[in-house]
Amino acid sequence: MSAPPGPRLAPKDPDYEARVRESFARQSHMATLGITIAFIAPGEVHLALPFAERFCQQNGFMHAGAIASVADSASGYAARTLAPPDTDVLAVEFKLNLLAPARGEGFLACARVLRAGRTLTVCQADVFTTGVGEPTLIATMLSTVIVRPVEGRR
Amino acid sequence: MSAPPGPRLAPKDPDYEARVRESFARQSHMATLGITIAFIAPGEVHLALPFAERFCQQNGFMHAGAIASVADSASGYAARTLAPPDTDVLAVEFKLNLLAPARGEGFLACARVLRAGRTLTVCQADVFTTGVGEPTLIATMLSTVIVRPVEGRR
Amino acid sequence: MSAPPGPRLAPKDPDYEARVRESFARQSHMATLGITIAFIAPGEVHLALPFAERFCQQNGFMHAGAIASVADSASGYAARTLAPPDTDVLAVEFKLNLLAPARGEGFLACARVLRAGRTLTVCQADVFTTGVGEPTLIATMLSTVIVRPVEGRR
Amino acid sequence: MSAPPGPRLAPKDPDYEARVRESFARQSHMATLGITIAFIAPGEVHLALPFAERFCQQNGFMHAGAIASVADSASGYAARTLAPPDTDVLAVEFKLNLLAPARGEGFLACARVLRAGRTLTVCQADVFTTGVGEPTLIATMLSTVIVRPVEGRR
Repeated sequence: MSAPPGPRLAPKDPDYEARVRESFARQSHMATLGITIAFIAPGEVHLALPFAERFCQQNGFMHAGAIASVADSASGYAARTLAPPDTDVLAVEFKLNLLAPARGEGFLACARVLRAGRTLTVCQADVFTTGVGEPTLIATMLSTVIVRPVEGRR
Repeated sequence: MSAPPGPRLAPKDPDYEARVRESFARQSHMATLGITIAFIAPGEVHLALPFAERFCQQNGFMHAGAIASVADSASGYAARTLAPPDTDVLAVEFKLNLLAPARGEGFLACARVLRAGRTLTVCQADVFTTGVGEPTLIATMLSTVIVRPVEGRR
Repeated sequence: MSAPPGPRLAPKDPDYEARVRESFARQSHMATLGITIAFIAPGEVHLALPFAERFCQQNGFMHAGAIASVADSASGYAARTLAPPDTDVLAVEFKLNLLAPARGEGFLACARVLRAGRTLTVCQADVFTTGVGEPTLIATMLSTVIVRPVEGRR
Repeated sequence: MSAPPGPRLAPKDPDYEARVRESFARQSHMATLGITIAFIAPGEVHLALPFAERFCQQNGFMHAGAIASVADSASGYAARTLAPPDTDVLAVEFKLNLLAPARGEGFLACARVLRAGRTLTVCQADVFTTGVGEPTLIATMLSTVIVRPVEGRR
């Protein structure tokens, strides 16, 4: 009983994957950081972040803000996979624990929904190193996402 | 890759279980809340909290502070199982997401170590309902515990 | 500019104080811990927790769960002072940083609203020692509270 | 008593400002985001982030990861102002509550130390809009920073 029982994973929006990809494409921050979508399923989204020297902290590791960026977007889109059509998702809050230095060839943020409520969705995202060697868990995020009706966009 | 790779679970203190039980017995808050130890293993501790009407919030559910209490102690003792002899553990901070009302016959807080560092240990604790029916995940806690040398005690 | 600009503090419920007191009286957990209301104003609630040996951790300090209890209720009721009539408040999540051991004659949890939204209210609560000597900040909590219409109660 | 009593603010490192500026200059992530130092004092650092279209989320607001970046670095450097010479600071964990959309000409992250311990420092950072109009509090971060002896660098 150490793993949380999975949420009911039937998506309410049959086009959830297209919606996630469309919204992701509008996040300029993702393109700037070189983040790509690695996996989408109901209640789960993985995003890949390559190591880049221009997003580092003082010791040459990726900055915690870059790690937060990939974990936050993975979490928001994991929440979006279970949201109704014509909704948007916004981060309410997140907490990130940094477990190991963010060094390596790249990183994979694996977010999953812990609970999808009517208004609020709670997600967890684990960030691992990718590339040569064993994956190392470098960070974990616990977050709250709010699901909102989409307002008219131009 | 959605589950974190397990930490190295070799306990540094062969008497870790006795140490946890001895410290737990000194936590008057545990006895007051009726909390008992359900499971101890290297890197993992489960504590059981019975429902009690005198620890409730305004709607008759267990108060979030009671849920935090059981999750926090489970996390601290999970950290203690991997700590060296002659150390004590103290919570640095914790974050609790409340996922469902804390109603039911009782609750089980299942804490595990995500990373055991020299000074800091990061833990996650999931709190489930127990008793009749399917266990429901009602809360999850992500926390940081500091491992300190024991100071002389009378 | 280091202090947050105050929220608009006009209460939407003229009977906010009575509502807070009535809900507080229904929280059995407050009576059990001996917690009392010290101050109520729009956007701010202070609760007092006396030191008690039966709510302690292994070193004789008040358990972090007891501190979380008083900070969480103070935050929820701070949120309630700004909520519309016929609403209830529930903790969504909170994060508690423990800054110093919880020893002393008593503690005062001072919660204030950082932002009161339509659905979500964000609060901060500082917990100080009371009694002899200078007040010491022993913990701080940052939390999210959801405001919900009251459902019919028996 | 609603504001935390200030920490003892005597810096242990007389060259704290130079140390902060030198470390900041090595954070490539700061230069990439266009972040600059606005204020340094013992226990307090303010960093300015200009709005930039390439760091946005799907609605054209600055991404929460960009806001986390500026708040995290401000907090780490606030901690550094009170740390001994020959130490480095690393984020252990942070929690960010997002209070309003990150739109505007720019943002100012105002971080201050709540408690500076031997090993761990706890900080709070408020992020405000800058430019035309009243400053709006858009986010607040509560974080833990670890102070470590500097290891030899090439």
